[in-house]
Amino acid sequence: MRNAIRFSWGENQGFIRPQEFEGLRPSMQAVHTMIREGTGAGADFLGWRDLPAAYDQEEYRRIKEAAKRIQKDCRVFVVVGIGGSYLGARAVIEYLRSPLYNMLPKDTPEIYYAGNCLSASALEEVFRLIGDRDVCINVISKSGTTTEPAVAFRVLRAYMEKRYGEEGAAGRIYVTTDKCRGTLKQFSDKKGYETFVVPDDVGGRFSVLTAVGLLPIAVAGIDIDALMSGAEAGMKLYAAPDYTANDAYRYAMTRRILNAKGKQIEVLVSYEPYGQMLNEWWKQLFGESEGKDHKGIFPASVVFSTDLHSMGQFIQDGSRNLFETVVSVEQADVSFPVADDPQNIDGLNFLSGVEMDRVKATAAKGTLLAHVDGGVPNLSVCVDRRDEYALGQLLYFFEMAVAASGYLSGVNPFDQPGVEAYKKNMFALLGKPGYEDLRAALQTRLDS
Amino acid sequence: MRNAIRFSWGENQGFIRPQEFEGLRPSMQAVHTMIREGTGAGADFLGWRDLPAAYDQEEYRRIKEAAKRIQKDCRVFVVVGIGGSYLGARAVIEYLRSPLYNMLPKDTPEIYYAGNCLSASALEEVFRLIGDRDVCINVISKSGTTTEPAVAFRVLRAYMEKRYGEEGAAGRIYVTTDKCRGTLKQFSDKKGYETFVVPDDVGGRFSVLTAVGLLPIAVAGIDIDALMSGAEAGMKLYAAPDYTANDAYRYAMTRRILNAKGKQIEVLVSYEPYGQMLNEWWKQLFGESEGKDHKGIFPASVVFSTDLHSMGQFIQDGSRNLFETVVSVEQADVSFPVADDPQNIDGLNFLSGVEMDRVKATAAKGTLLAHVDGGVPNLSVCVDRRDEYALGQLLYFFEMAVAASGYLSGVNPFDQPGVEAYKKNMFALLGKPGYEDLRAALQTRLDS
Repeated sequence: MRNAIRFSWGENQGFIRPQEFEGLRPSMQAVHTMIREGTGAGADFLGWRDLPAAYDQEEYRRIKEAAKRIQKDCRVFVVVGIGGSYLGARAVIEYLRSPLYNMLPKDTPEIYYAGNCLSASALEEVFRLIGDRDVCINVISKSGTTTEPAVAFRVLRAYMEKRYGEEGAAGRIYVTTDKCRGTLKQFSDKKGYETFVVPDDVGGRFSVLTAVGLLPIAVAGIDIDALMSGAEAGMKLYAAPDYTANDAYRYAMTRRILNAKGKQIEVLVSYEPYGQMLNEWWKQLFGESEGKDHKGIFPASVVFSTDLHSMGQFIQDGSRNLFETVVSVEQADVSFPVADDPQNIDGLNFLSGVEMDRVKATAAKGTLLAHVDGGVPNLSVCVDRRDEYALGQLLYFFEMAVAASGYLSGVNPFDQPGVEAYKKNMFALLGKPGYEDLRAALQTRLDS
Repeated sequence: MRNAIRFSWGENQGFIRPQEFEGLRPSMQAVHTMIREGTGAGADFLGWRDLPAAYDQEEYRRIKEAAKRIQKDCRVFVVVGIGGSYLGARAVIEYLRSPLYNMLPKDTPEIYYAGNCLSASALEEVFRLIGDRDVCINVISKSGTTTEPAVAFRVLRAYMEKRYGEEGAAGRIYVTTDKCRGTLKQFSDKKGYETFVVPDDVGGRFSVLTAVGLLPIAVAGIDIDALMSGAEAGMKLYAAPDYTANDAYRYAMTRRILNAKGKQIEVLVSYEPYGQMLNEWWKQLFGESEGKDHKGIFPASVVFSTDLHSMGQFIQDGSRNLFETVVSVEQADVSFPVADDPQNIDGLNFLSGVEMDRVKATAAKGTLLAHVDGGVPNLSVCVDRRDEYALGQLLYFFEMAVAASGYLSGVNPFDQPGVEAYKKNMFALLGKPGYEDLRAALQTRLDS
């Protein structure tokens, strides 16, 4: 079994003493039991743990078939979803294809994301982007009632039915929702939309390897078999009870040790623009799992070297309340040697003929040493190649790490009670029936 | 004179008492003198302060002409620059046009950004994006020796000369660099490239209203006259000595007061995807200006409501070390009412016919109240319209605020000494002549 990831916690940097891990051993053992035996808070949402081996094979086959049909039926594919129903697919597509996937020549459809905000101009743009090209859509919503995707789906469904007729539209609308409950499921069955399942025991931010993520990912032409197979490797590797043999646990413990020393911000670093949306996925995974009970490490992200020229100053020499976790990819996927310049106007001829990827890797080493000298602990997650397998393992690595880290910090890593607060206020202020009292109270505060 | 911006520091939220501003009055007065009379640290870099009135009119005319020529000569415009030579233009173009500017139908060239990282795959993509379409490039580098843009320029220049011949390429390469020093300026003059100036007294992160930002912005079809005129309004409004009449100063003071109370992270909030790159520009402006001497408020950013479903949980209920600054745009620029659904499958028919922009504004109000209840101070920067004038004023507002805030916290807001650290290490490790001793020392550390 290929292990695509090497983790190191900064062994020689002097911020952590090895015995600090031993001090956490009993807690880590207890957490291991909670994760394996489902005895911790939120254990109803442990479905992600066994997913890479225990998924619904019949549905998986349907996902692949639907993806092929979508690739054939349209040039524009619109994915309607928010939060965990949006970030995973986009992260994987941009990481493996490109952040400029839509602009580049390809034989798979352009993919746009709608229903993840309340911007009228963003929604209006989707229609300009579609133009007169053929379109399919995938609505992803467990309940079917989340405001952002619901509003977008109203508009898109009307558009599809007007353009293709009710039956034609039905063949182009794919719905990922609850297995049986919810009005969206009932409505879809009545209309004849093909549906896929958001499992009950997998929270949104852990759902990238379910139909939620897999359908759009497959439409982009990505090998989801390899993705799942990498995740399965992660599932096996990160089941090890002893932290010395479990990188996900060591990452979780390192985060807790640093947090206890006053580090309140974790900056996830990519050296490739294609890693930016993966960073965003990671931010949701960690922020939403740990940011509760007035606790949690604030998750931030940068893309170097571009952000060495923006956030670099702060990281090097600003408030010393942060640490970095660098995700790097070892093997170059493109050969691009630095061109020689006989006039040497930039003084960089010592680089002539050197692979850009080596310049990048060297910049990363130099940056690590500089930031460590500046007082910033540097954790490293080294991925062997930019491919489906490694990414599948990486996704699982982070999922297991956040479960462990959340339990270690004493929170339920699988709920998100704070997300309801803005919705309740919004519904009240918008006059949703049943919210009259709250509405009056909020309005008084706004008027004061 | 139109004042396009209203700032409020959270008057009724209970996190700050009004007398705290009075307590900072003497310091603010001293800082005002430093900014107006140039008596503070880094006063050589105060050029941004008078720029909206005191720019080079002859060069400004050339910028507009060059932009017209570029629009005529190419379908793809590649902007080569990093940090302040990149973020300003991109922020303005995406804010005023769209983050999907390149995908949308338009009669101006597609614009891509190169030389802002060391990714081989990103650079290789630029050539696939160009394809066989006509191209012009703008290299932006004060010294001409910064590694990232220099490496990209080597490759792009070779490509242009091979494709268009030396003379043809010269008519398509525009260089923004030092007025007279530096090998890039000399080389450009010899080659016959049209050149524009990175002023000596304007730091990179303050340079968006110089040729650095204005040329790409004008190429995108944006009215730079209106942008400058809004900035000029800002220049006048935020010159007021008394903080009670100066919103930029009040914003700076609010930040200092909250930081003194333990708030270590500022989250800049946009409710529109088109604000995302502006948030990135702001992060450089504030992070690089204030993040030094082991001080500074960590600048982070979110786009709501999408990130209410990722970072929302943390902001609502995680570690209480943060505050939010919400940039909102008052007037809708697109009318888009929520469609009615006779079946009401999502239960949202109480919204039928309501403008999405009003739903968004109401979500923002509900979120503000929820986050304040959760213990997060909310500052508000309310912009009247999405247009050039308001954005020009906003850019200036932030520039003046960071100057004041930096001086109030006792740092030089105009230097960035920490940015050199990684470069030195990188050069040493890459074998640049003159760095032999450092190279040996670093290599020893890496091998250990």
